[in-house]
Amino acid sequence: MEAKPKTDMVAVDAARSLGVVQTREYTFAGPLALESGESLGPVTIAYETYGHLNAERSNAVLILHALSGDAHAAGYQHGEKGPGWWDPMIGPGKPFDTDRYFVICSNVIGGCKGSTGPASTNPQTGKPYGTEFPFITIADMVEAQRRLIDHLGIDRLLCVAGGSMGGMQALQWVASYPERVRAAIPIATALKHSPQQIAFNEVIRQSIMADPAWRGGDYYETGQPEKGLAVARMIGHITFMSEQSMEEKFSRKLKKGQLSFNFDADFEVEGYLRYRGANFVKRFDANSYLYITKALDYFDLSGGKLIRPGGTDTCFLVISFQSDWLYPSYQSQEIVRLLKRRRVDATYCELKATYGHDAFLVEVEGQGLLIRHFLERTYRGERNGNGRAR
Amino acid sequence: MEAKPKTDMVAVDAARSLGVVQTREYTFAGPLALESGESLGPVTIAYETYGHLNAERSNAVLILHALSGDAHAAGYQHGEKGPGWWDPMIGPGKPFDTDRYFVICSNVIGGCKGSTGPASTNPQTGKPYGTEFPFITIADMVEAQRRLIDHLGIDRLLCVAGGSMGGMQALQWVASYPERVRAAIPIATALKHSPQQIAFNEVIRQSIMADPAWRGGDYYETGQPEKGLAVARMIGHITFMSEQSMEEKFSRKLKKGQLSFNFDADFEVEGYLRYRGANFVKRFDANSYLYITKALDYFDLSGGKLIRPGGTDTCFLVISFQSDWLYPSYQSQEIVRLLKRRRVDATYCELKATYGHDAFLVEVEGQGLLIRHFLERTYRGERNGNGRAR
Repeated sequence: MEAKPKTDMVAVDAARSLGVVQTREYTFAGPLALESGESLGPVTIAYETYGHLNAERSNAVLILHALSGDAHAAGYQHGEKGPGWWDPMIGPGKPFDTDRYFVICSNVIGGCKGSTGPASTNPQTGKPYGTEFPFITIADMVEAQRRLIDHLGIDRLLCVAGGSMGGMQALQWVASYPERVRAAIPIATALKHSPQQIAFNEVIRQSIMADPAWRGGDYYETGQPEKGLAVARMIGHITFMSEQSMEEKFSRKLKKGQLSFNFDADFEVEGYLRYRGANFVKRFDANSYLYITKALDYFDLSGGKLIRPGGTDTCFLVISFQSDWLYPSYQSQEIVRLLKRRRVDATYCELKATYGHDAFLVEVEGQGLLIRHFLERTYRGERNGNGRAR
Repeated sequence: MEAKPKTDMVAVDAARSLGVVQTREYTFAGPLALESGESLGPVTIAYETYGHLNAERSNAVLILHALSGDAHAAGYQHGEKGPGWWDPMIGPGKPFDTDRYFVICSNVIGGCKGSTGPASTNPQTGKPYGTEFPFITIADMVEAQRRLIDHLGIDRLLCVAGGSMGGMQALQWVASYPERVRAAIPIATALKHSPQQIAFNEVIRQSIMADPAWRGGDYYETGQPEKGLAVARMIGHITFMSEQSMEEKFSRKLKKGQLSFNFDADFEVEGYLRYRGANFVKRFDANSYLYITKALDYFDLSGGKLIRPGGTDTCFLVISFQSDWLYPSYQSQEIVRLLKRRRVDATYCELKATYGHDAFLVEVEGQGLLIRHFLERTYRGERNGNGRAR
């Protein structure tokens, strides 16, 4: 991680960059007991760490990724042009300041970025699991992460933080292990999916499964269901952007200056969606998309499931974005209302942003400022997070 | 049309029902010159009429249907359980009062409900057009309707009215033939599609074309691209409903009382979408869906294209619905602002409704009242509509 950056792009902000990083693996035999009643093992978790764990082991921050994210949250990897998916947020002097905190990010189980998922080898058959892979939930993802945190020798996390599905995992950490989390930052997320959110995921799944190349999930020798997966991702991209950001980026601009009067992509927005769909197929496994969207839909920490009767010392920073219509602010406000009713220390902020749901990835300034101060105060013990378990 | 109703369902509101109606056909040799530069002929238009044309031929109302609509707007047809798509709005004593007005509804060209479209026989090959069918625009649809109106001997329409794509046709009628339209009622529609609306249509098209059964549009002997078309329609249905109506109708209710932990439809909303998708495949042609969504995306009457410099005597009632996020109220307000700038007599109303875009089909009460009074005043000559061309 301390190696010198090798590309020009890295050199530009080298002083605040983590430089070249590497993904590691932690494997445990399991079996991991899953919510479905099934079990999974052995389990490999791909993860990255940035910065150093202090002597008290009190400065660890767990970053949790969204649907198609991975363990590579920050810094650069050889052969890749861009940095990790949350690089502007993580590094020396950045909001998740690696001069101060030990930052961890791991790929979820069920994913396809190094952790055990449907594309992994099923030890019972010697072939990829495909749809023989057991169903996993957000709680199962967190359970696997807990094993990694144990392995890293960390008793209590300073903070768990993430956007979208990452926010659900942050909430699930508090629900599953409140005593092991001083602070949680759920961003652009929800206690549970609304029927509209389920509906979008269902159409995404149907699009993948409608492709004959899906073959019931058994396509690892024949190739991905590329067309179905591309359409699925195009649906996703519409929901990630806002009407306003689409208007600003594309308006009704034509790709070729005039209408084609055929089924080509006439408008720039069409070309963009086609490009994003085609690109996604190269980097993500269709079965993982199916499993993870189901985990999102199953997630439900409403009612008494987030905070147990005794309450919690975990303190919260809840963030939402104005133009996000996939995870609208009212869903973050539901989290905050629930926390307040349980007398949990919670701060809420709805940030101005035109990017829609993508804001949690790209709106760095406002989000970064909030997170920086919240983390500092938590770390210095000025919040509830300095409670009983320390 | 005067035949006695034959089913119990009809009998219930027989006094205000049109009873059994029939669809007729009007065919002209053409060729119809299309906006693309191509031409189409012969052209058949399927249409229905309700009520009687008066001696002055001044009481004709043209109803314009939406994407998947047809000429059967009201009354009952043998062998069908339900009435036409806007039956609560059209009939004796109803808002479009057939005791008073002569109501016409025709299927758009490019469609698949009796009018010439991609599934029709190409006279040059003796086989269905498929994607040899020329591109059509909303203006082309209106041009074909104009021939029907000529054929029916109507010089000037009392009113053109419709929701969604029907509203676009209403606007296009004023743009193309302002002197032939006394009043226009565009409902839940827009002057042009936003990039988000284009994006949804593009994903719908990609879903159809991704299905190998589509075969480049040449599937009339081998069967519809059922899976792709079903997914396409599922996407549509999400956009037709509102978050609130989905919450009220489905919430997170489970189909079988418990989670399946497999890829079955766990939630009622999933089952509903699958049902609507599968049902649509039985009644609509995939190529028509492609052609008509393109016509929607191409439509653009912004700027000076709706009202020419000399203005118009046509008066407008513009209606939108609060929870409609597919054609949000701001788009109707853009129509009204444009009309006001051109000193056109225009009334605007945003109606309360939780149904989303579907409101134009199902929210009868408020919409009906507005339309009834607007039509009456126009008919009595109390509005601009009584201007120069009479």
